[in-house]
Amino acid sequence: MSGKKGESSPARGGQKIEVGILGATGAVGQQFIALLSGHPWFRVSWLAASERSSGKRYGDLPWRLSAPLDEDVASMTVDTLKAGVGPELVFSALDSSVAGEAEIEFAQAGHTVVSNSKNHRMDPLVPLLIPEVNSDHLALLPLQREKKGWKGAIVTNPNCCAIPLAMTLAALKKFHPTRVMVTTLQALSGAGYPGVPSLDATANVIPFIDGEEEKIEKETKKLLGMYANGGVEFHPMTVSATATRVPVINGHTESVSVGFEKPVSHEEILAAFEKFCGEPQKLGLPSAPPRPIVYMTQQNRPQPRLDVEKDGGMSVHVGRLRTCAILGHKYVLLGHNTIRGAAGAAILNAELMEHQAAHK
Amino acid sequence: MSGKKGESSPARGGQKIEVGILGATGAVGQQFIALLSGHPWFRVSWLAASERSSGKRYGDLPWRLSAPLDEDVASMTVDTLKAGVGPELVFSALDSSVAGEAEIEFAQAGHTVVSNSKNHRMDPLVPLLIPEVNSDHLALLPLQREKKGWKGAIVTNPNCCAIPLAMTLAALKKFHPTRVMVTTLQALSGAGYPGVPSLDATANVIPFIDGEEEKIEKETKKLLGMYANGGVEFHPMTVSATATRVPVINGHTESVSVGFEKPVSHEEILAAFEKFCGEPQKLGLPSAPPRPIVYMTQQNRPQPRLDVEKDGGMSVHVGRLRTCAILGHKYVLLGHNTIRGAAGAAILNAELMEHQAAHK
Amino acid sequence: MSGKKGESSPARGGQKIEVGILGATGAVGQQFIALLSGHPWFRVSWLAASERSSGKRYGDLPWRLSAPLDEDVASMTVDTLKAGVGPELVFSALDSSVAGEAEIEFAQAGHTVVSNSKNHRMDPLVPLLIPEVNSDHLALLPLQREKKGWKGAIVTNPNCCAIPLAMTLAALKKFHPTRVMVTTLQALSGAGYPGVPSLDATANVIPFIDGEEEKIEKETKKLLGMYANGGVEFHPMTVSATATRVPVINGHTESVSVGFEKPVSHEEILAAFEKFCGEPQKLGLPSAPPRPIVYMTQQNRPQPRLDVEKDGGMSVHVGRLRTCAILGHKYVLLGHNTIRGAAGAAILNAELMEHQAAHK
Amino acid sequence: MSGKKGESSPARGGQKIEVGILGATGAVGQQFIALLSGHPWFRVSWLAASERSSGKRYGDLPWRLSAPLDEDVASMTVDTLKAGVGPELVFSALDSSVAGEAEIEFAQAGHTVVSNSKNHRMDPLVPLLIPEVNSDHLALLPLQREKKGWKGAIVTNPNCCAIPLAMTLAALKKFHPTRVMVTTLQALSGAGYPGVPSLDATANVIPFIDGEEEKIEKETKKLLGMYANGGVEFHPMTVSATATRVPVINGHTESVSVGFEKPVSHEEILAAFEKFCGEPQKLGLPSAPPRPIVYMTQQNRPQPRLDVEKDGGMSVHVGRLRTCAILGHKYVLLGHNTIRGAAGAAILNAELMEHQAAHK
Repeated sequence: MSGKKGESSPARGGQKIEVGILGATGAVGQQFIALLSGHPWFRVSWLAASERSSGKRYGDLPWRLSAPLDEDVASMTVDTLKAGVGPELVFSALDSSVAGEAEIEFAQAGHTVVSNSKNHRMDPLVPLLIPEVNSDHLALLPLQREKKGWKGAIVTNPNCCAIPLAMTLAALKKFHPTRVMVTTLQALSGAGYPGVPSLDATANVIPFIDGEEEKIEKETKKLLGMYANGGVEFHPMTVSATATRVPVINGHTESVSVGFEKPVSHEEILAAFEKFCGEPQKLGLPSAPPRPIVYMTQQNRPQPRLDVEKDGGMSVHVGRLRTCAILGHKYVLLGHNTIRGAAGAAILNAELMEHQAAHK
Repeated sequence: MSGKKGESSPARGGQKIEVGILGATGAVGQQFIALLSGHPWFRVSWLAASERSSGKRYGDLPWRLSAPLDEDVASMTVDTLKAGVGPELVFSALDSSVAGEAEIEFAQAGHTVVSNSKNHRMDPLVPLLIPEVNSDHLALLPLQREKKGWKGAIVTNPNCCAIPLAMTLAALKKFHPTRVMVTTLQALSGAGYPGVPSLDATANVIPFIDGEEEKIEKETKKLLGMYANGGVEFHPMTVSATATRVPVINGHTESVSVGFEKPVSHEEILAAFEKFCGEPQKLGLPSAPPRPIVYMTQQNRPQPRLDVEKDGGMSVHVGRLRTCAILGHKYVLLGHNTIRGAAGAAILNAELMEHQAAHK
Repeated sequence: MSGKKGESSPARGGQKIEVGILGATGAVGQQFIALLSGHPWFRVSWLAASERSSGKRYGDLPWRLSAPLDEDVASMTVDTLKAGVGPELVFSALDSSVAGEAEIEFAQAGHTVVSNSKNHRMDPLVPLLIPEVNSDHLALLPLQREKKGWKGAIVTNPNCCAIPLAMTLAALKKFHPTRVMVTTLQALSGAGYPGVPSLDATANVIPFIDGEEEKIEKETKKLLGMYANGGVEFHPMTVSATATRVPVINGHTESVSVGFEKPVSHEEILAAFEKFCGEPQKLGLPSAPPRPIVYMTQQNRPQPRLDVEKDGGMSVHVGRLRTCAILGHKYVLLGHNTIRGAAGAAILNAELMEHQAAHK
Repeated sequence: MSGKKGESSPARGGQKIEVGILGATGAVGQQFIALLSGHPWFRVSWLAASERSSGKRYGDLPWRLSAPLDEDVASMTVDTLKAGVGPELVFSALDSSVAGEAEIEFAQAGHTVVSNSKNHRMDPLVPLLIPEVNSDHLALLPLQREKKGWKGAIVTNPNCCAIPLAMTLAALKKFHPTRVMVTTLQALSGAGYPGVPSLDATANVIPFIDGEEEKIEKETKKLLGMYANGGVEFHPMTVSATATRVPVINGHTESVSVGFEKPVSHEEILAAFEKFCGEPQKLGLPSAPPRPIVYMTQQNRPQPRLDVEKDGGMSVHVGRLRTCAILGHKYVLLGHNTIRGAAGAAILNAELMEHQAAHK
């Protein structure tokens, strides 16, 4: 790691960079605000939401996180989703029912939209970004601006299950993974608020999450794809996913089996996890975890309740690497779905982009 | 279904068959007693347990089921684990730390031991029985008696996850399954009492259950194996399992992917599930569910809280049949781990055996 | 108990009595349908709900209970909330936002509305009925018809916490209770569906339920009140309630302290619980539990998970009777909130009314 | 608040004060170690536990907290419970089955034992200390040493429910509380590890905690008692408690009703909560929360999941102040049972004692 946290600040000379939040009142919107509290580079200066909340004092709306709400954010008045008014950099936590059009309007009006929404993730001109995995995909941006005719841009982060899965696969990419089978055990917070009714969630498993399996299967292939000639060529691996909901508050657990083109040893895999490192670590980005992948040797870990909040929820915890009689290797991973899998992912994306902009 | 419930009774002429319970005070022992309450063929007349409980009135020991405890069982005095005293037929709910030797002693002393314990399951001379799947494996018994020199016998039921998995695979056996990948989401009651500490179970996933994956992988192959020439030839399929514990009271959910030798359509699979039927249904055994496999068409089912108690906990609920990009097909199943996966399984085994004995 | 179940049937001579369900698609509506399945006197022949569901086949709407849905009910088409069309006897599971006016319309049109809704409970002319507690309050009905000018009638059952509390206090009424302090720990099903969001309910306590404390405090006084001269004189006791929500599926637990006018011994209280009995038991009404109050001697009971489903959810389980240094006595009670506290309560009310009508 | 955190350090001149942990391997022992990580005054230098764990490397024993274990503590070898070897100041997290004698041996050998165990709490010569409530009770120590003949001393913190209750009552002491009725909803972590079996805790309430009600009733009176003439005169209030266990991880909720000698307004009570402040705040002790009592105005707060970790778990959150028709006033409180109710309480006690020792 060549940089230290903060050294790389694009804002070093002066003021923090102002950011806005689209969809500031929902579960992910609140998580953005919580994570940006005290952020060394960014300062939340603008909040936008649907008509239902706009015009209200943010602090008067229900705040559902255990992290406290900053007084200066609480005192802001929520604006409407009007492009061109707020700061240049906006984080989007918009519901997919409105994100599609709204994010385009903001990009057209010159905003850089760093989005957690699913709508534009599979657009061939939109980077689907995990800074440790495919920072080179940002090369799509000039093309995006040119072909879309936008003054601004849209950059997205992947689905909450695809992120930690792709991080572990990126560490193993050199072994040429060909087939990936995954069953997820996903936390309730992934469904937002009010989300899953408690009668469905208490002492129960719901073996279905609408659209989730397709996202995991497709986004993983784009994430590990190669940027070349103005586009991302999808990785040829096959991914098969089953998504379930379990009564956990935060933290998606995934049971993963992987096959590689050639034989690989457990030692090689462990070493690859251990050494895995990307731009955030090299540049010392503020939200970068020290190690993106933490392998736990205890046989009954990782566990959401004990491990998900470690490293600020930004690292992926992995355990139980062992032989899979069918594909070759299997392991269990845990990722924080609302931090590394949503708001924290977008913030890390923005940090990388601002660093690059400042050091061009 | 040719028989009606009760018609096949081996006890029709007169008295119910007396049965004993080995390990009567544990979680599975209690489940045996609850399921045998009002049983048309069997009557619990003898309870045995370790020194700690023997000599005590059963009703004075803690009863942890919501089902009521029969007064006549409550008034029995718990005996020691002394072979040769109790009735000929005994159900074993013994802990694996003692079941190995104790069950042999009971078999030597002439008891038919219908066991839920893991100790003798993989013994080549011991039937690992699911009446709908491999009733022909009971042909091992004469050989077992001869080679072991036992007057009695030992018959076992499989692991609580292997049972429902093997039932679905038995329905699909004609399509020649070759590879089976399964991730389980197992209920807390599977760990007995006191079992999993609540601090580990609340809003958490534990991605490890000691010995469980091996049992699922091996027992499934024996269950689907063919009896021939005095032995069971294991099925050649490959099974790869990941076992996790989730905060559910009763009901193991399994995410299953299967590959077959030749292409099979979803319609063929659904029809095979629908038609699947075995000796218990044909003979109308008292604990037989009307259909061993119930396919649910709602996209978010089966769910433990809503579905696990149906059909007295004796049927396997299946849902979400769809294409697996890697193995071919995938589905989700749910089985009641303490009923179809433990005590109810053993009782059904005993029903089949008593029926055969009465109709020889 | 002079009658046996079924003997008292008002329908003995012939057909079952047809009943309708207002608000058939909600949580309580579903519970009505489940409890009326196989009912010896009543047969569900008409379902009504809001415009959103009317016109649809009932079986095509989501069914959220583990109890199966009867095929003949599943095949019914849901009607609108149109008074005068359905059978004379209707059970109301309407949301309080519409129950107020709708129930009056049905009463005007000649229906006997047996309601679980809160709207008319405190109307001086409407019986707030628990058959074991205040069956004499039904004497209000002729007055209600006369003064309201209704051809039909409205009879209500109390709040889900007030019912079991009032049942225990009715057993102790002869000792003249003067002060009652209660803290409730209420199940999630009490909030209906979707009800409490799972993020609020998982591993959490919500120390507030809107309007609940007032209902408990007021309804209890009406329930124990005396009918005289065309009205109910409220019982003079003081009730102070705190209502909390806990992560339990079914079953409200209540921590109760009671003071009496004169000294009473624990033996007298236990005997009063034991002997407590009312019209449902005397008449052998179909839904009557054998004993309305079941006292459990184990020191850690009653518990929702183990005890709430006993006696079909119609009895109140009580335990931990001991001295309260402030009010005199304290105990813990448990009642099934959607059965004895809602749909089952209304059905028992209707059974009593139909029995009286048939034996006038 | 006259001091700032750290200013008051008794260790300012040089080294941190070494401390030992008795019962280092249990749930409370682990919490001590987690809270002392990075403590500005104290450094854990000695770990003692029963024979079962002694001789082992601490880091090789199971660590069950989500907070990481310090490397320097992990590398320590666990010692036996041998008095006279470790540092002068020891925190006791011993189980009550051994704490009675062991703590006396340590006090005799010259150790200052700051204990969380219940054994010596009600000893008339042992301070039962909450620094914000009764710091004057430390005046018992010279008498304790003299009468017991100990070179060291024993100081205890109260029961986990008594602490937050007594803190709110201390704030209201000037209004002369006479009667206090409390029902607790206690978290699972209060029972230690393995503690409550998950089958008892999942979607359930256990309405009994052995010995808990007596502790709350008695300790509260000692805590609010007056030190005079070499002893503590118990407060004359009457306390009546009901203790229940609910499926919450951390945080005891209490439903409290209080009566005062004279009429008091809600405004006066709120002001008393607001102004409440004690030695820890005045001296700026390291573990002191900014305000010992935080009143929340939202009607559905405090909630364990959202509020219990605030202020490092050291403040008591209160809400829902309203009229109690029987006693006068009622409110709901929430305290962190393993921090403010156990390890954090003892550490704050030690901080006060070390500050006093350094500033004599």
